[in-house]
Amino acid sequence: MTYRQHHTLADGRDLFYYDLDPGSDRSATDQRELPETATSSQIRWDPLFQEWAVIAGHRQSRTYKPPVDLCPLCPSRDGKATEIPAPDYDVAVFENRFPSLATEAAEAVPTVGAFPFRSGPGTGRCEVVCFTSDHDTSFAQLSPRHARTVIDALADRTTELSRLPGVEYVFCFENRGEEIGVTLSHPHGQIYGYPFVPPRMLRAAEAAAAYRDEHSACLRCELLRQEVEAGDRVISRSEHWTALVPFAARWPYEARLIANRHVASLAELTDDERTDLAGSYLDLLRRFDRLFDTPTPYIAGWHQAPVRQYADSWHLGCEVFTIRRAAGKLKYLAGSESGAAVWINDITPENAAARLRGD
Amino acid sequence: MTYRQHHTLADGRDLFYYDLDPGSDRSATDQRELPETATSSQIRWDPLFQEWAVIAGHRQSRTYKPPVDLCPLCPSRDGKATEIPAPDYDVAVFENRFPSLATEAAEAVPTVGAFPFRSGPGTGRCEVVCFTSDHDTSFAQLSPRHARTVIDALADRTTELSRLPGVEYVFCFENRGEEIGVTLSHPHGQIYGYPFVPPRMLRAAEAAAAYRDEHSACLRCELLRQEVEAGDRVISRSEHWTALVPFAARWPYEARLIANRHVASLAELTDDERTDLAGSYLDLLRRFDRLFDTPTPYIAGWHQAPVRQYADSWHLGCEVFTIRRAAGKLKYLAGSESGAAVWINDITPENAAARLRGD
Repeated sequence: MTYRQHHTLADGRDLFYYDLDPGSDRSATDQRELPETATSSQIRWDPLFQEWAVIAGHRQSRTYKPPVDLCPLCPSRDGKATEIPAPDYDVAVFENRFPSLATEAAEAVPTVGAFPFRSGPGTGRCEVVCFTSDHDTSFAQLSPRHARTVIDALADRTTELSRLPGVEYVFCFENRGEEIGVTLSHPHGQIYGYPFVPPRMLRAAEAAAAYRDEHSACLRCELLRQEVEAGDRVISRSEHWTALVPFAARWPYEARLIANRHVASLAELTDDERTDLAGSYLDLLRRFDRLFDTPTPYIAGWHQAPVRQYADSWHLGCEVFTIRRAAGKLKYLAGSESGAAVWINDITPENAAARLRGD
Repeated sequence: MTYRQHHTLADGRDLFYYDLDPGSDRSATDQRELPETATSSQIRWDPLFQEWAVIAGHRQSRTYKPPVDLCPLCPSRDGKATEIPAPDYDVAVFENRFPSLATEAAEAVPTVGAFPFRSGPGTGRCEVVCFTSDHDTSFAQLSPRHARTVIDALADRTTELSRLPGVEYVFCFENRGEEIGVTLSHPHGQIYGYPFVPPRMLRAAEAAAAYRDEHSACLRCELLRQEVEAGDRVISRSEHWTALVPFAARWPYEARLIANRHVASLAELTDDERTDLAGSYLDLLRRFDRLFDTPTPYIAGWHQAPVRQYADSWHLGCEVFTIRRAAGKLKYLAGSESGAAVWINDITPENAAARLRGD
């Protein structure tokens, strides 16, 4: 069980505490004087390359690598007021103070026109998920019980954000490490509620729907079956989850953690599946951290079904990948990747899987 | 006029000198003992996310930031043998010694299977374009006449690579700056001949073809017309070229240099258009370098028509963008971009255009 308490920050933003145990006192109020957050994001359509971009012109002045004694994700203590008024917490989720997407954007920014200048307000929601009150740890070092509470929080937020008008996709992710631009070192993830289905998820949704139409079966169930049969890219398997390196991995070390059961979102997972996920996910992150002598920078993101479409054919998974290709060497997204969207991967998926297995 | 001479390196790779003037002696031969290059690249298809990845497992040991006196792109001098045997050159293009794609891959790597493990050899070609023999300069500092010779070289290589069996797209690009992972600081670009149309270019090709079918007109001609009419994203205009920030720009500072005439590739440009391009492109790069106190890291890439398809509806352009969003601050491709393919841009295209215009 996870215990949720709701709170409202001084500028009206939502804050949720998710606790491992009942009865924790999280009643401290936000004593800061905060200006109201102003969001003027737009989404704009590129008719040539066929994708939306989010233009968030108000974000340039956001917090950038604050000194550790000013960490806004630590609990408020000794008169230092942070984003979390309580003196301690297990898991806390709050609305980003500098959001790329927000429900108020709908009022602030009118749509400016039709083809070729098609745009709309940056409607949506950006939340910050503090995995723990301990500034100096990482997700991989959480206890299984604590990790399970984070998963419950993500599932709960997915359900709630899916209900917001205009939100078409809920994306839970973690950026970890300065090498990928993380500005706050406190262990945390993020949740974006996008006003459109992101291009990468839309392609996967369309592929899964097409496969289902043709074969009356789930594409990812079939991929999973064949990967388990092949075996050489499988990292580990538990009762409810399978970790593997995808056959066409784009990143030096990349893994997908796939639900063994055909299920579309975190919110639909059973109690057993969530508990197993906590252990399986921790195991996978720890394997990433063992790749090199120093903690591995990584991006982790959840592949959930879009809010309004494709839920039948979607199959839940998570991906974890690092941009580190060797000790002291990073994989950069240069001309081929950023210009043409062709990833060049210098490590074969089979070798990556062997290293992640610890062969 | 540009004067071309062909040469063969010690391990059989092609080298082409492109000179501003006739009669330069480029006859020096490669004195090195080089092992034959071994390429075992594969392309692999991801059936879920619907894209090819290039798996180039042999590339992990490639040259990584050599000291300047070992720069392999400088001319060979004083007994130091580099990739360029001649003691000087204007522009030199040679086959990459550690290619991600190569014609020999077709023999080295068999296709391993059908769905879901669809793969093929990494057939193609990777060339390195040395813009100048001067190690300590940049493209932006070349003379217009020298830049014109680089453009002629790119056009010539496009024509030749388009004729290679299996090459479906020729992508000319430059990565500039350590911030985007450039391992050799000598001014140079690259050309990739891909065995498929890159996803980003395929989307643009399909969008342009669909627009043409519906309107009997070119999508990019129409975009250009409307951008010029709107004006606020236009950076500069010459007789044959228009530089502008796209309406839905993904990067902090991003520009497209678009041919005013409907033309599909560099090879089809007239003499006047090429000369004008040299000046317009230099002007654009110099505007990027004036954005900050230190040279701006950038990626530049050419949008040419695919080799075998879509040539009618394609309209030539080039894009230049930087990952630097402010002095000392980079735009990282983190969860939203790398995980979901949604770019968040903190600078409005109109503000970016104003800065690039120098308003």
